[in-house]
Parts: sequence; structure tokens; C-alpha cells
Amino acid sequence: MSIKGNCIIAQSGGPTAVINSSALGVIETAMKSNLIEGVYSAKNGILGVLNDELFDLRKEDIETIQGLRNTPSSALGSNRYKLKSQEDLEKLFSIFQKHNIRYFFYIGGNDSMDTADKLNKLAIDKNYEMHVMGVPKTIDNDLFGTDHCPGYGSVIKYMATMTMEVGRDTEAMYTTDTVSIVESMGRHTGWIAAGTALAKKTDEDAPHMILLPEVPFDKEHFKSVLQSYIDKYNRATIVVSEGTKYPDGTFLGEQKGEFSKDSFGHTQLGGAALSLKSIIENEVKVKARFVIPSLAQRSAMHFASKTDSDEAYFVGAKAVEFAVTGESGYMTTIQRVSNNPYKTEINKVALSEVANSEHLLPKKWISKDGFFVKQEFFNYALPLIQGEVPIKMEQGLPVFMRFKKHFI
Amino acid sequence: MSIKGNCIIAQSGGPTAVINSSALGVIETAMKSNLIEGVYSAKNGILGVLNDELFDLRKEDIETIQGLRNTPSSALGSNRYKLKSQEDLEKLFSIFQKHNIRYFFYIGGNDSMDTADKLNKLAIDKNYEMHVMGVPKTIDNDLFGTDHCPGYGSVIKYMATMTMEVGRDTEAMYTTDTVSIVESMGRHTGWIAAGTALAKKTDEDAPHMILLPEVPFDKEHFKSVLQSYIDKYNRATIVVSEGTKYPDGTFLGEQKGEFSKDSFGHTQLGGAALSLKSIIENEVKVKARFVIPSLAQRSAMHFASKTDSDEAYFVGAKAVEFAVTGESGYMTTIQRVSNNPYKTEINKVALSEVANSEHLLPKKWISKDGFFVKQEFFNYALPLIQGEVPIKMEQGLPVFMRFKKHFI
Repeated sequence: MSIKGNCIIAQSGGPTAVINSSALGVIETAMKSNLIEGVYSAKNGILGVLNDELFDLRKEDIETIQGLRNTPSSALGSNRYKLKSQEDLEKLFSIFQKHNIRYFFYIGGNDSMDTADKLNKLAIDKNYEMHVMGVPKTIDNDLFGTDHCPGYGSVIKYMATMTMEVGRDTEAMYTTDTVSIVESMGRHTGWIAAGTALAKKTDEDAPHMILLPEVPFDKEHFKSVLQSYIDKYNRATIVVSEGTKYPDGTFLGEQKGEFSKDSFGHTQLGGAALSLKSIIENEVKVKARFVIPSLAQRSAMHFASKTDSDEAYFVGAKAVEFAVTGESGYMTTIQRVSNNPYKTEINKVALSEVANSEHLLPKKWISKDGFFVKQEFFNYALPLIQGEVPIKMEQGLPVFMRFKKHFI
Repeated sequence: MSIKGNCIIAQSGGPTAVINSSALGVIETAMKSNLIEGVYSAKNGILGVLNDELFDLRKEDIETIQGLRNTPSSALGSNRYKLKSQEDLEKLFSIFQKHNIRYFFYIGGNDSMDTADKLNKLAIDKNYEMHVMGVPKTIDNDLFGTDHCPGYGSVIKYMATMTMEVGRDTEAMYTTDTVSIVESMGRHTGWIAAGTALAKKTDEDAPHMILLPEVPFDKEHFKSVLQSYIDKYNRATIVVSEGTKYPDGTFLGEQKGEFSKDSFGHTQLGGAALSLKSIIENEVKVKARFVIPSLAQRSAMHFASKTDSDEAYFVGAKAVEFAVTGESGYMTTIQRVSNNPYKTEINKVALSEVANSEHLLPKKWISKDGFFVKQEFFNYALPLIQGEVPIKMEQGLPVFMRFKKHFI
């Protein structure tokens, strides 16, 4: 049995289409708990905690809260702020104490789990009872300890659909627009790019080639395989992961300039499609067009996966259940119990393990020529895109909620 | 009463999400007509006619044909081939004669209507009874003589939704990713970019600024208005039309190189968002991220407008009705009878008029500061995005049809 007190729910890092479903899972479960009194969030996540800008979720309308399931991006606010020092951490902790925060639910990726882990350890050191639970979130699907990450199913459902659609465009227009390139996010892992493989039912379907960060970009090999598709179908649709690199480690789409690194020191990617277009036009001598969905892919609520949204809700809800039964220092995880029929259970993993590991696309799932994925990947990914989240529509467009944010 | 004979249906130019609904309207109506015997199409549109590569649509399965309504891009094949000479035209005509083609339905934009007009005139000169009807299609919405063009409603429904979603992303992430830029197609008119205005319900909603080709890009003015949004909301989402130009007529996103012009001599646009990102980062000193949906916007079947799809069907069906009752040399048009309730009728306009005119975004609908549109635009555009086309889904992804193409 845990202590009575207040809770803070925060979101962190890049949004997904279903991160708000996780928030809904946390909020609804927290509001029903006898142990949790104040249900708070903070402006811009952890930044708002540092600045003591908390708002009270119990004061929001029920319709607003339930609208979370149909609203993309982080409705609670987010940030990429990296705790700079022990001083930051201590300050954060003092705000938690000031407001009698006994439960902290942090919905985020790798860096967020690291922050949550540090906070949890500090609370233990200070002998302050606080239950810190991480809730997994990332389109990149690279979190350790979970079969897959909420947000991933939706991004690949959307990106696979886009690849099908763009592929059909090129199929009609190949006499002029011979190659189309779709650039996917995913940073250093090819999970998202690989997910577009689901679009392909027959050899002539897009995508014809997928460029993964896991496979060093061999330009001559690329050109010769591309040429073989052009010879066979007069066209090709290529998906390139933003993290695709030359053998020397240089990114195809490395950005330069003042804003090219984020606060975690990660290089800002995006632009691989432009380099590829130039290689194709100058060296393969056919016209290429590119699609850079960028932010649109991670916030595509209008075509999100129902399976993904439901799982996002449950990893949130279960985090509260773990916390009120005394657990702390874990991230909830999705465990695949069976694949056919697809069945999962929510479990947990220590935050410290998540913070220090990555879940990479298995190299053995990549096809021999390096430009596609094997059946094992299909088995893994296909269940994650099943079903569509019903969208609330008004006057021809989706309706999204927005918190009123009653600051305490 | 028209003559008995065969027909050719062809699609031309850039695809849309609903151009196949127009093809369906033509095909279903042609197949029911007592006057139309062979119902043919040609590989890659007019190119296939020139090469005498016709295929028989009566040999396709009914499921394949009905799948047209849910399939994006030009399922019959398309091209950007410009008839090069009178010789080309004569050759085209000889193929029509050879196969006793008495009906020609050409689904396309401006350039296609010009081709159709020339063919119609040649048939008259040669005293060969042939009924040539154009069917309007373009996401650009720039065809003369029709209230709006099939394809437009769907592209703006999708782009407005994307703008809402990207806007929410930036709203969550403004502490690092302060400005988001969505680049729209639309060539020299701002119709598509303007359509994203529908996403905005309140002042804080995206889009905050829309850059239109109709308004010369005044960099200093742009920076000062952008700064005012950043001051007010800490962020901004901007939609920039690919055709946006500096006062001297240079495009923001002009492409260079071998493939920078198409066969009609039109400059290949795309890239305005990159220029804008660089201006914002270097001169406004905040980080900007861009989304370039490009081809994905014109083939986004998964979120197409039902109103648009239905109208696309009817302009196709009606073209056949006009032709079999003796008309030739016209393009079908959509006439808005009333706006509230929204009601339209299908009418026609001479091909020669369409070929030589453009339907531009009225300057009086642009707001005073040049960065938004007035209520008149909302009244015009809102009815066009109503309803969603039901999508056939299988295993979590849309199902598209593909013709088997039985060549004659």
C-alpha cells in the first residue's frame, strides 16, 4: 500500500499520435485511485515543474479529458530540456516536496527514463516516499525492455499508407516522374522506414527499396539495384530513413548551422531525400521527387492505429496501478504473449535498464541485399497497425481538445 | 442522337485522390450506353494512343472497376506528354479512326483541355463524327469555367488536417522547435495553401501565416508578423505555397538542374520551405522545421473528401451523357447553385475557353496583411471538404485496385 498524496503527469520529447492516449490512461486511473488526491501536470513538462508552473487536471471538463484519445501531439506540453546539473535535479525534487507529490508519471523516451531514474534515486536517498513510473512513448521504437513502443504502430500505419499512395502516383506518372522518395524519421534505427514494407503485397508495389541506417549506404550498389527496378517497372519508390549513413559514418542528410543539434547533443536529421534525389538525377539520369513528411508523420492522428492507441492507454493506466501498489523506478512495457492471435500483457522494466540500452532493428530481419526486410519483420509489425482510431469530425475536419490549464 | 462506336477514356497530368472517381463515372455511364460499344483506355494516356496501346475496360472485373472509387492516383495511367506537332495530332487522330473511336473522354487540367480542343477541331475539319468531352481534374483548382475542380476538396481537407496536426506538434514543442513550415503545392495560385486556413478556429490555432503566390514575399514584413506570433504564442505554424515569389519574380524554392522544367516548360517547384527555414533560423533566430508533403498531398486517398469524390464521379458521368446526346468540344463543370445548403449542378464550358484561361484565387479574398484569407474564402471552401470517403481496409492498410490491362 502506498502513501496518499498528489501526482504529476508529464510528457517529454517528440510527440506521437497516441501519447495522449497514455496520458488519458494515467489521468483516468489516477482520478479513480483513493491514494491520489491532486492530479497535476506542468507547463512544458519537466520545465514547468522546475518553474513551479503546475496545473490541476481535476478542474478540466470531462469532454476535454476524453478528447485526449483523438488529439495528436503532447496535450500536456513537452520539451527537450536536459537536466543540466545535480542542482536542477534538487530543484525539481524541492518542487515535488513542496506540493506533496508522491506519484510521478513520466511519458517519454530514453532520455526521459534517465531523468525519471535519477529522480527516483534521489527520492530514495532523501528518504522521501515517491513512486516514479515511466510510460514508454516513441515513434522510433527504440526503447529497451518493451516488445514495441506506443506511437510506433501509428507512425508505420500512416507511413505505409503514404508509401502506397505515393507509389501509385509514380506508377501513373513514371514517364516523367520516374522515382519517388519518401523520407522517414527514426533517427539511428530503421524501425519506421522498415515499417513501410507493410505496404508491399506484390513485387511491383511500393516500396521497392528501403534505405536503413543499419546498412551503410553503398552508392554504386544502390544505383545498380535501383536501375534493375527501373528496367523492370520503369519506376521505383524508395523509402529512406533520415539516419541513413555513408560507410564513413556521414549522414546522407546531415544538417549544418546553428540549430543542427538539439539540447541532448543529437544531430538534427532530415534531408536524406534531397541528397538521394540529387544522386538519382545526376547519376542514374532519371527524375526523382521527394516527400518529407517530417513532423506530420508523428502527429497523424487522423489515421492512427487502434491497436497502438489502446496499448498506449493501457501502459499509462497500468503505470498508476503499479505505483499505487507500491512500485517505483520502473517503466511499463508491452509484452507479446502470442502473435496469432495477437495478445499482449503490460509488464515493467527497471528505469535504469531502459536508460542505458537501445532496442535496435535486428540485423537478421534485413534482407540480403540490404534494401528490404524479411518475413520476420512482417510478423512482428503487422499486428501493430490493426484497426483505426475513430475520429471525431466537425465540419469536415477532426476536432482536437486543448487543456484550459488551471494553474495552482 | 450520336453515332455508334467505341470510346477512349484517358487521364492526364498530375493525379489527385479522386481522379479515379471521375474515371468510374465515365466508365459506368459509357458501359450502360447503347451507343458506346468498346470502352477502351490507353497505356499512359495519350502516349498510349499515339503508340496504339489500347486496353479493353469491358474485360476488367467489376470489383476492380468499383475499386476505382477508393484508389488514388491515375489508375488508367497518365503522362505529361505535350503533343509536339500537327504530325502528332494527325497520328493520334489516325488511331482514333482505326479503332472507330467516336467518343473521347479526357480527364485532366488546362493542358489536356487544350489537346482535347485541338482533337475536336481536327475531327470537325476531317468531317469525322467524334464526341470529345473534357472532365476537369486538378488539385490546383485553377480551371476556368467551373466553380471548383474535382481533386481540390480532397487536397485541402488533407492539408488542413495536416496543418492542424503539425500545429499541435509545435504547440507542444515550442521551447525547441519554435516554427513549423508546411509547404503546399498549387503552382502559381494559392488555392491549396489558402485551403489550410480551414484548420484555424481560434487565433492561437495553426496556421498562423499563409504565404501565397499572389502576394509578393516581403521578407521584412514577413519577419515582423512572424515575430508578433512568436511574442504572443511562443511559436508559429506557417503554410508556404510552392509558388511563393519574391517581388522580382524569383521563386522562394526554385529548383536548378537538368530536371527542373517539365515537358510543358513549367518550372518544377518545391523547396520554398527550405528557403523559409533558413531565413527564420538565420534572421529571426529561432529553430524552424519543415514538412514537404509533395506527392503525398495529391494522392491522399485515405482522407479524401466525400463531397469531392462524389462530384468527381458526376463530372465524369455527365460528360458521357453530354456526348451521347450529341455534344462535343466541352468540359463538364461544377456550378454552385446554392451555398447553404450546398447544392451544385453539372454544366459545361467550351474547351477552347478552358484552354486559354485560368481561375485564380480572388485577390479580394486575401486578408489585408497578405498572410491569411477572409471569410469569403471560408464560405467558398468549407462545403468542399465535407464527409469522408469510406476506405476499404485489409490487415490495417487501405486496399487499392489495379487494372489488368487487356490490350486489344
